[in-house]
Amino acid sequence: MDQSRMQRLRDFMERKDLQAVLLTLPKHVYYLSGYFSNPHERFMGLLVPRDAEPVLIVPALDEEAARQAARELRIVSYADTHNPYRLVKSLLPPGVVRLGVEKNHLTVTRFEQLAAEQLAREYIDVEAVLREMRLIKTADEVARIRKAVELVEQVLREGLQQVAVGVSERELAAELEYLMKKRGADGPAFETTVLAGEKSALPHGVPGRRKIAWGDLLLFDLGVAVDGYVSDITRTFVVGEASEQQKAIYAAVLAANQAAISAVKPGVPLAELDRTARRLIAARGYAAFFIHRLGHGMGMDVHEYPSVHAENGETLVPGMVFTIEPGIYLPRVGGVRIEDDVLVTADGVEVLTRFPRELTVLG
Amino acid sequence: MDQSRMQRLRDFMERKDLQAVLLTLPKHVYYLSGYFSNPHERFMGLLVPRDAEPVLIVPALDEEAARQAARELRIVSYADTHNPYRLVKSLLPPGVVRLGVEKNHLTVTRFEQLAAEQLAREYIDVEAVLREMRLIKTADEVARIRKAVELVEQVLREGLQQVAVGVSERELAAELEYLMKKRGADGPAFETTVLAGEKSALPHGVPGRRKIAWGDLLLFDLGVAVDGYVSDITRTFVVGEASEQQKAIYAAVLAANQAAISAVKPGVPLAELDRTARRLIAARGYAAFFIHRLGHGMGMDVHEYPSVHAENGETLVPGMVFTIEPGIYLPRVGGVRIEDDVLVTADGVEVLTRFPRELTVLG
Repeated sequence: MDQSRMQRLRDFMERKDLQAVLLTLPKHVYYLSGYFSNPHERFMGLLVPRDAEPVLIVPALDEEAARQAARELRIVSYADTHNPYRLVKSLLPPGVVRLGVEKNHLTVTRFEQLAAEQLAREYIDVEAVLREMRLIKTADEVARIRKAVELVEQVLREGLQQVAVGVSERELAAELEYLMKKRGADGPAFETTVLAGEKSALPHGVPGRRKIAWGDLLLFDLGVAVDGYVSDITRTFVVGEASEQQKAIYAAVLAANQAAISAVKPGVPLAELDRTARRLIAARGYAAFFIHRLGHGMGMDVHEYPSVHAENGETLVPGMVFTIEPGIYLPRVGGVRIEDDVLVTADGVEVLTRFPRELTVLG
Repeated sequence: MDQSRMQRLRDFMERKDLQAVLLTLPKHVYYLSGYFSNPHERFMGLLVPRDAEPVLIVPALDEEAARQAARELRIVSYADTHNPYRLVKSLLPPGVVRLGVEKNHLTVTRFEQLAAEQLAREYIDVEAVLREMRLIKTADEVARIRKAVELVEQVLREGLQQVAVGVSERELAAELEYLMKKRGADGPAFETTVLAGEKSALPHGVPGRRKIAWGDLLLFDLGVAVDGYVSDITRTFVVGEASEQQKAIYAAVLAANQAAISAVKPGVPLAELDRTARRLIAARGYAAFFIHRLGHGMGMDVHEYPSVHAENGETLVPGMVFTIEPGIYLPRVGGVRIEDDVLVTADGVEVLTRFPRELTVLG
C-alpha cells in the first residue's frame, strides 16, 4: 500500500467532503494497493473510508493472490453467488452521503447495481485527483518507464535487421511484437505500427500487406508494457537511398524535435513546447503537414496527462513524463515522425529514449 | 446495413415501446451497419429511430472511411469542437420518451453527458436483444469463424515445431502470436496460453519463464481474431514420454469431450452437455478436478452466449457456436484440457476444429 498516495486521496476526500471512495479501475487499485488483477466481469474494488482503514474487495478465487501482493491491507473476498455491492455497503461507515467513484470507468449497469444498494446519496467523480497524482512520476515509476524504454529500443534495434525490400509492413510488425515478448516485455503497449512509403503519411495508418520498396520512407511507432508501465518511440528510416525531399522533411522534423526537447524545463508552459516545434516546421514551409499535437503524457497508460498541445497553458513540473513527436505528413508521398520520451527534471530535461535520431538509410 | 438484423431491432423497439435506440459499442455498430471502427475516446453511434431511417454518427476524421464501408447508410459527422450528444438530440424525432442504450458499455461519464442533453425521459438497456441476435450465427458469420479456426490450427501446427526441452512457455506463446500475424490473423483473440508441467494445472495460468522439461504435460490454449470473428482451441500434449497417470487423465478428458460433442443436437438443454461430460469424468474418479463450466459461446467475442454449464436449461438451436472444453487439473501435478469449437446444425453438430485429439507425445 502506498501511504503517500493514500494520504493525497484522503486530502481530496476532505476537500470534497467525501465520506469514502470506491476505486474499481484495476490500474488505480494497483496504484494505491500494489495489487494488480484484471477481474474481467467480476467486481474488484478498493474501498477507502475517510476515517477508517482501506479494504480491498476481491472475488474469492483471487483472495490468495491478493494477500500475497498486498500483505498489510485488509482483504475481504466474496463468492460468485453473492452480491459484491451489498458487501461494499456492509463495509461502509453508516450514513455515507457522498461516495467517490470513477465515472469514466464504471458502466451504467454497474452503477445501477451499486446505486440499488444505496451506498450513498450522491456519487462524485474522483478522476481528477488520480489524474493529478499520476501526472508526477515517482522515482520508482521512472525506473519502470526506463526499463520499458530500454526494452523497446533493444527490440527496435533487433527488428531493423529484418528490414529488406519485399518484406511487408505486417511481417515486420509481427516480428517486433515477437521480439518484445521474447525479450521479456508483457507485450506491446499499443498496436505496433510499421508504415512504408506513401502509407507513412497516415498518422493512424495500420500495417498491412504493403511491401517495402527501394526509396521508401519506413516509419516505426512502437512501445512495450512491462511491470505496469509503458514506453513509446517513433523512428523513421529511408530504404536504399534518400531523395532530396525526404532529406528536407526529415531535417525539419528533427530540428523541431530537438528544439522542443531543448525547451523542456520546469515552469515552461506545455503550449510553448508545441509552438516551438510548430514554428520550426512552419519556417521550412511544412506548417500544413504537422497535423497533430506535439505529444502526450505516458506512464501506466500510453496516453495520459499532460497533453502537449498549443492551447495547454499548464506549466512543466519535475516528474512529468511525456512524448515529443513532431511529424510531417505529405499526402500520397510519405511522412516522417521522430518521437522521444522525456522526463522533466529539477533543472531541465532527461531524454529517456536514446535511439539515434540522425537520418539512417537502411539496406 | 443488415436489413434483417435492423428489422429484429425494430421489433424489439416495438415490444419495449422504445422510440429510438442509440448503439455505441463498436461491435454492435458493425453488426448492424457493416462499418467497424474503434473511435477510442471519441463518440461514435448508430442511431435507429423506430419510424425513420438509421443514422451513423462518426467523428469528422472517420467520415470518409464510414462512407466507403456503409454506402447505403445516412452518415453524419461532427467536429472535435462540437458536442456529439447535442447532434444526436437534433437527429432524434421530437418527444422521445424511451431511448434504448447499451448500459453495459456506456460509462457513467458518457451517460451523464448524454442525459444532460435530455435525449429522452427514460433510458432502457437493449443488451438482451443484441445478445439474442448474436446467439444464432448466420452462414456468413460461420464462414468467418471457420476461417479463424483454420488459421489457428495452422498456427498451432507450425508452432509445435518449436517445442523442445529448455524452451520457455513465454517463448512458445510469443512464437504462436508471431505466427498468427504472419499467417494473416488480425491478432490473438485473447492472451495465448502455454503452460508446462505442474503449471498446466492452473486453468487461468499465465505463460512465464517455466521451461519445458522431459515428461511435462504441455497445454496450449489459443485463438485468433480475423475479420471481426474469433476461434478458440485447447490441445494438451506430453513431452518425451507419457506416465500412466497422464494417460489416465487424458483418456478421461477425451472421453468427456467426445461424449459431450456427440450429445449436441437441436432441442437438447445446454445443461445436458455439461452433465454428460461431468458424469464421464466423475466415473473415472476425477469429479473434484473438473473445476469450470464445459464451455462458452463464441463469435465476435471469445466469451459470449450461450454459457454451457450445468444449470443452463436453455436448449440448443441451429446456428449456435460454442466451445466444449472439459479439463482435469491435478494440483501441483498437471492438467489436461481438450477444447473444440462446435456449430449446432439442423440435425446435430459440426465440429469446426479438426486438430487431432489423440494423446500425442512430442519430441
